[in-house]
Amino acid sequence: MSLSKNKSKLITSLQQKKYRQKYNLFVAEGVKVVRELLNSELEVDSVFSTDENFSCEKVNVTLISEEELKKISTLKAPNKVLGLFKIPEQLEVQKNGLIVALDGVNDPGNLGTIIRLCDWFGVKQLVCSKNTVDCYNQKVIQSTMGSITRVQINYVNLINFLTEVNIPIYTADMDGNNVYKTTLPKEAILVMGNEANGISAEINSIVNSKLTIPRFGDLQQTESLNVATATAILLSEFKR
Amino acid sequence: MSLSKNKSKLITSLQQKKYRQKYNLFVAEGVKVVRELLNSELEVDSVFSTDENFSCEKVNVTLISEEELKKISTLKAPNKVLGLFKIPEQLEVQKNGLIVALDGVNDPGNLGTIIRLCDWFGVKQLVCSKNTVDCYNQKVIQSTMGSITRVQINYVNLINFLTEVNIPIYTADMDGNNVYKTTLPKEAILVMGNEANGISAEINSIVNSKLTIPRFGDLQQTESLNVATATAILLSEFKR
Repeated sequence: MSLSKNKSKLITSLQQKKYRQKYNLFVAEGVKVVRELLNSELEVDSVFSTDENFSCEKVNVTLISEEELKKISTLKAPNKVLGLFKIPEQLEVQKNGLIVALDGVNDPGNLGTIIRLCDWFGVKQLVCSKNTVDCYNQKVIQSTMGSITRVQINYVNLINFLTEVNIPIYTADMDGNNVYKTTLPKEAILVMGNEANGISAEINSIVNSKLTIPRFGDLQQTESLNVATATAILLSEFKR
Repeated sequence: MSLSKNKSKLITSLQQKKYRQKYNLFVAEGVKVVRELLNSELEVDSVFSTDENFSCEKVNVTLISEEELKKISTLKAPNKVLGLFKIPEQLEVQKNGLIVALDGVNDPGNLGTIIRLCDWFGVKQLVCSKNTVDCYNQKVIQSTMGSITRVQINYVNLINFLTEVNIPIYTADMDGNNVYKTTLPKEAILVMGNEANGISAEINSIVNSKLTIPRFGDLQQTESLNVATATAILLSEFKR
């Protein structure tokens, strides 16, 4: 009942996307996150715990030492449990209701926050461009908690997807329509862009409507809202 | 024109709050952030650069090597410039308009996001409980960019402040009034709580109105919105 060298090596390799894709597995850590994923429809591969009281129906929990956990954990303060879960198959995109699409969002924390927002606002479908950060990145998993199991996430050729779909497309833009004065439809795609560069030119060219969150502070300033907080405000406007 | 051992030691000591308070200095890094702070009313102490073309009117820039910068930087990828700025004196709290108050917000990223939101929505005053993370923490500085110079931030005994002030007090709460159906005043204090524990009981007891951001997703789930995204949505509602 301890951690084999091979398993340990496998687990740390999953910090890289190419190995997650090779083995079709991702890592989740901590009692709360692992418990939430165990309670979801995800298939579990294996669970390791330093606490002999942590058990689950789906799989035998392997008891490991604090030291062993430390070796395979990416957390500063490892929290008792680490689980390996199977990356689910990509289902077909659900092309109805409110959809969020991400065009090259880089930061795992931002993606995690956006997944939680989708879950909160009942957005069932998140569509990501291929260059958006991987949602099975461990930082994303740790920050989304169970939300990742309730939002369907697809990685697609975003320009093709947007060209083919028959739903109005909105983006956030500095020079768009005041979102507070715009009537928003129930069925729409909200595209949010990269942290530094925003929406790519190609995608911008097929957008139907640009939305602006008005700035109430000093108008001279050029800084923009963070992509996750802008998504929060826009989803709130679509749903309120 | 290089970095003395003493200065180098001083700069790294400023990663700790007690030394920032002792020397009354904080660190900012990167061309963009340092430039923004140099263009503000902040008093600069010294600037170090690996780029001889980086200059400013306020102070002589000390040319240093990449290696020297690496030693004093906290960034993974140090970006040419590091500046020391004087922590400004705490002015008296401005008790009018919309005020955001934080009750024990711990995460520097969350505080940084909230400062940017205040700047965006024209909130001039941010009041923090003494146990809220220090706004001169370097992670806060890096994420706020110039916003930190446009929002007045005071650290106070929050319960005393809220008891003495004559403005209605709102908080976010799971069992409050639907924020989308509530008429919000122009003058108010919005109190946001700690990431794990929310608002402290003492402060909860003097709140006038609790606001809920309705959940549109699966109602069984218990996860809440992150404090920064909840602040984004609530400020948007106060200002829209």
